[in-house]
Amino acid sequence: MKKLILAISAFVPAMWAGAAPYAIEHVEPLNWWVGMKWSDLQVMVHGEKIAELQPALSYPGVRIASVERTDNPNFLFVNLKIGATARPGEIKLQFKRGNEVVTTYPYRLEARRQGSAARRGFDSSDAIYLLVPDRFANGNPANDDAGMREKSDRGEPTKRHGGDLAGMQAHLDYIHDLGFTMVWPTPLLENNQPAYSYHGYALTDYYKVDPRFGTNEDYRNYVAAANARGIGVIHDVVVNHIGTGHWWMRDMPASDWINHGKTYVQTNNQHTVAQDIHAAPEEKARFFDGWFDASMPDVNQKNKLAARYLIQNTLWWIEYANLSGIREDTYSYADPAFLVDWNRAVATEYPHLNIVGEEMDDRPYMVAYWQKGVVNRDGYRSGLPTVMDFPLVDTAPQALTAPEEGGQGLIRIYETIAADWLYADPLKLLVFPDNHDRPRALAQVDGNVDLLKTDVILMATTRGIPQVFYGTEMLIQGPKERNDGVLRADMPGGWAGDTVNAFTGAGLADGQRDMQRFVRTLFNWRKTSSAVKHGKLTHYLPRDGQYVYFRHDGKQTVMVVLNKNPRATQLDMSRFAGMVKDAHQGRNVLTGAAVDLRVPLALPPMTSVVVEW
Amino acid sequence: MKKLILAISAFVPAMWAGAAPYAIEHVEPLNWWVGMKWSDLQVMVHGEKIAELQPALSYPGVRIASVERTDNPNFLFVNLKIGATARPGEIKLQFKRGNEVVTTYPYRLEARRQGSAARRGFDSSDAIYLLVPDRFANGNPANDDAGMREKSDRGEPTKRHGGDLAGMQAHLDYIHDLGFTMVWPTPLLENNQPAYSYHGYALTDYYKVDPRFGTNEDYRNYVAAANARGIGVIHDVVVNHIGTGHWWMRDMPASDWINHGKTYVQTNNQHTVAQDIHAAPEEKARFFDGWFDASMPDVNQKNKLAARYLIQNTLWWIEYANLSGIREDTYSYADPAFLVDWNRAVATEYPHLNIVGEEMDDRPYMVAYWQKGVVNRDGYRSGLPTVMDFPLVDTAPQALTAPEEGGQGLIRIYETIAADWLYADPLKLLVFPDNHDRPRALAQVDGNVDLLKTDVILMATTRGIPQVFYGTEMLIQGPKERNDGVLRADMPGGWAGDTVNAFTGAGLADGQRDMQRFVRTLFNWRKTSSAVKHGKLTHYLPRDGQYVYFRHDGKQTVMVVLNKNPRATQLDMSRFAGMVKDAHQGRNVLTGAAVDLRVPLALPPMTSVVVEW
Repeated sequence: MKKLILAISAFVPAMWAGAAPYAIEHVEPLNWWVGMKWSDLQVMVHGEKIAELQPALSYPGVRIASVERTDNPNFLFVNLKIGATARPGEIKLQFKRGNEVVTTYPYRLEARRQGSAARRGFDSSDAIYLLVPDRFANGNPANDDAGMREKSDRGEPTKRHGGDLAGMQAHLDYIHDLGFTMVWPTPLLENNQPAYSYHGYALTDYYKVDPRFGTNEDYRNYVAAANARGIGVIHDVVVNHIGTGHWWMRDMPASDWINHGKTYVQTNNQHTVAQDIHAAPEEKARFFDGWFDASMPDVNQKNKLAARYLIQNTLWWIEYANLSGIREDTYSYADPAFLVDWNRAVATEYPHLNIVGEEMDDRPYMVAYWQKGVVNRDGYRSGLPTVMDFPLVDTAPQALTAPEEGGQGLIRIYETIAADWLYADPLKLLVFPDNHDRPRALAQVDGNVDLLKTDVILMATTRGIPQVFYGTEMLIQGPKERNDGVLRADMPGGWAGDTVNAFTGAGLADGQRDMQRFVRTLFNWRKTSSAVKHGKLTHYLPRDGQYVYFRHDGKQTVMVVLNKNPRATQLDMSRFAGMVKDAHQGRNVLTGAAVDLRVPLALPPMTSVVVEW
Repeated sequence: MKKLILAISAFVPAMWAGAAPYAIEHVEPLNWWVGMKWSDLQVMVHGEKIAELQPALSYPGVRIASVERTDNPNFLFVNLKIGATARPGEIKLQFKRGNEVVTTYPYRLEARRQGSAARRGFDSSDAIYLLVPDRFANGNPANDDAGMREKSDRGEPTKRHGGDLAGMQAHLDYIHDLGFTMVWPTPLLENNQPAYSYHGYALTDYYKVDPRFGTNEDYRNYVAAANARGIGVIHDVVVNHIGTGHWWMRDMPASDWINHGKTYVQTNNQHTVAQDIHAAPEEKARFFDGWFDASMPDVNQKNKLAARYLIQNTLWWIEYANLSGIREDTYSYADPAFLVDWNRAVATEYPHLNIVGEEMDDRPYMVAYWQKGVVNRDGYRSGLPTVMDFPLVDTAPQALTAPEEGGQGLIRIYETIAADWLYADPLKLLVFPDNHDRPRALAQVDGNVDLLKTDVILMATTRGIPQVFYGTEMLIQGPKERNDGVLRADMPGGWAGDTVNAFTGAGLADGQRDMQRFVRTLFNWRKTSSAVKHGKLTHYLPRDGQYVYFRHDGKQTVMVVLNKNPRATQLDMSRFAGMVKDAHQGRNVLTGAAVDLRVPLALPPMTSVVVEW
């Protein structure tokens, strides 16, 4: 019966919201905190004809600065001024007609955690483990459906498989043992969509963890458990769009809240219009205002109320769940001016947090445009500290598999790194062999594990913040052509009855066990290397299928040889005399073997080497 | 006998220079002018043991400010101060030992042409015709060898064919009729190299036109004849390297005058090191200081005397020959700091002249780095007004021949233009369907004349300064793989006895005649179009194998449809309502036909269209 009601409710029109006049359906943010820099709080109140009423409150240090209404009488935006003297407690928010209090809503002001504002974000001393919650581990089979519209079906790659926060929490030690210090789960918030909801990017509620993953409280507990192991959590934010199942689509906060209203007009996906001085206005509008997908209506961040809603939502989750960073989806698709405000708000509240934005483009100048500190010709300054190095992720497997002759080999990795002058801070680039939106790295290098290891070594030792996609450490391969549902495969061992178990090692092939050992050695060593975490990079032109670069900080030097030469070779070290200087001996960080730096370095076929001294 | 002497002279050592002590072999610049901003003149004097002497002069308004010597006693650098009161005339430059005048050299100060400093350079209102002097027309068969080391052999694509200034001058009307307002000949200066000298980029004398082309005076007369037809001349400068046959290689002005001395160490051709914050110092040095080729020693512009020599040489040719512009070869290979000084000197002396530099790289950010006005992160400002649009020249034929599906079609042209925000001034880009260093455009589009026309229309109507390579207007095709000697084919009709004559039209195939007519119509119309010459560009995403853009300046609108659709189509004009506004009728500039802008535009298969109103 409950199912039936839900199925119908998704298709009933605006009148659905609020059975009775003045019954409050939503108040968001769900609460706020005292002592926030963001003390001018916009509270969205949603309820049948609520705009007919006038809010009032009496609470020490808190007052109503103003009230805003839209062309939808079911919404009221109450702007609170939370003064420095305000204490935690419950505000009785009254809604009155004249002197009559028609309804009251208890709104909580909480105390902040100690040190909340000063929390450290992720940086190049970290390594990030990216996972897809639905596909990582099913810790609680009882919540696989949780009354949501789409039901789980593990046999279908595009459907939900039941992974959840309980599963994620059960395997935090596995991630810690691999050497990762941050975990980035793809979005955990409610996606009550009729289909294809497992990926999480079609939000239907900005303030609620999807019940198939758990509760808001479960999320908070997961973060605490991760923190206890020295692991921070990066929250995946989506400001550009929502899911068609979002309750706003049944009762729009304002007629311009969603671009193109309820009509699907697809974005042209033409990222260049953001910078293009020649782009026709129609093309610009189509890019920013078009919907990402038929199932993903485009939020209009030029509506100031919507903009504040989104900014507060990001702040809310950081404070509520105690997050270590933010990842922003489809970054360049949102309104550029809004993004400036959004970044500034987060940076103001949490000066040491980090945000990584997704500009999925393989041209360094397109990605660099969005990085904080870059001086753009059009004066635009987005304030985004970290950008994803899509130029490198696309180039690396191509360069590793192409013949060295003809300019398509390792020189392409060299040249991608050589473009770093376009960025304000290359150390803040997120570097990754693969992620949830690309064919897996192992597929891209045609199943060659030696090349996969070289790709992972590159990402672990070049400048930037490395990120590894779950399962890469145990050779999940998937198809070479992009196929999201398949490449986001279930992590073996995450489901009861799995015969292979990545977490315990049971049933793993030797190669998988070797790859896990390799990742564990590499990333645990990385924690100890000041040169790799923060040092300069100096590189030499590739020769003979070998690309050599150094990381160095005056205290430590790390020499990396990315080697795809299919024959055993002796690397002439004299070419690197300016880097080796008077050092005599190094250590191969993967084997532990001593390395004599005064003689040619013996390189096994197709084997990359990292030496430190 | 003469040949024998010349052959030997190239290989005798330093002692060769100057048979007798103090006999002056070279004084350069050959002369100077009064009234130049560059009034601190460095005169290089070369002669056996000349450094043992002390220069002196007595001339109103002129004095010797200082004298510089190097580690080669055969060179003396006399720094003259030419005051504002100096008049034209002959300075008796004395070289003394004590009070004894050992030798005297008459050094001329000339009067400048009226308006010399204020001369106009080339800009986007111009169209440039690029020709290779050895391959354009042989006006004087008597100078084909002219006592130089390499003899002409018209049967060999890599050897000299006898073209010269007389031939160029005889066909200025042809170039004028085609609608071009500038001519850029590849270098005309002496290349007395043993072989492969026809291209002209291996200078053996910075102050002398190659006698196989004519004399310095012939060059000056050629420029005057061009100017009389409203055509300016762009001089091709080479500061990065000389030819091995240069007299410096027998007697070096200083031991550090040429990088790596007389030893060939090739450049790594790795352009990225100029900007790369990670490049190993060894790679940077190898790029800038390595030789371009075994036959092209690399001039060390970090030697301040050499730097001044090169700067003065450029100024000298502008003033001497009355030039309208400079093209600088292998731009990024020269010392970056020197290039700043060189550009500044030219801009100071001739504020309205233009310089175009060759950075042969297909990445817009690599090219833009060198353009004047770009704010680079490393603070570098080269001061070069015009850069060559290699990104577009490489992209256009690929985009025209690729299938539209898969992102390799016209979208690539759109995206290259969309990167214009990287430049300080896109209108100052040099745009060209092909040049002397690339397979000809017709070869790149697999001989498809419709696509060639589209490529030429693109270059004639997009933002920038168009440049067409000689022979493209009459369908010279050549091989698709780069083969310099072959693609720089002889212009038919340039040689006595040619049965086909591009200049008279005799023997031309219908298609060639049609292409000439097309080019003539397009570029003569271009002269009349304010929107194309200086207007804004607004473009729309390609659809259906058609890329539509507008040039507009408030007075005139030009609509360009690059059309590679193989079927006849009707272009929906409503998409461009924002550009068409209330215009009703336009004119097809290639056919002269009226175009009704209120109805779909009928497009023949594979036919691009330009409409103005």
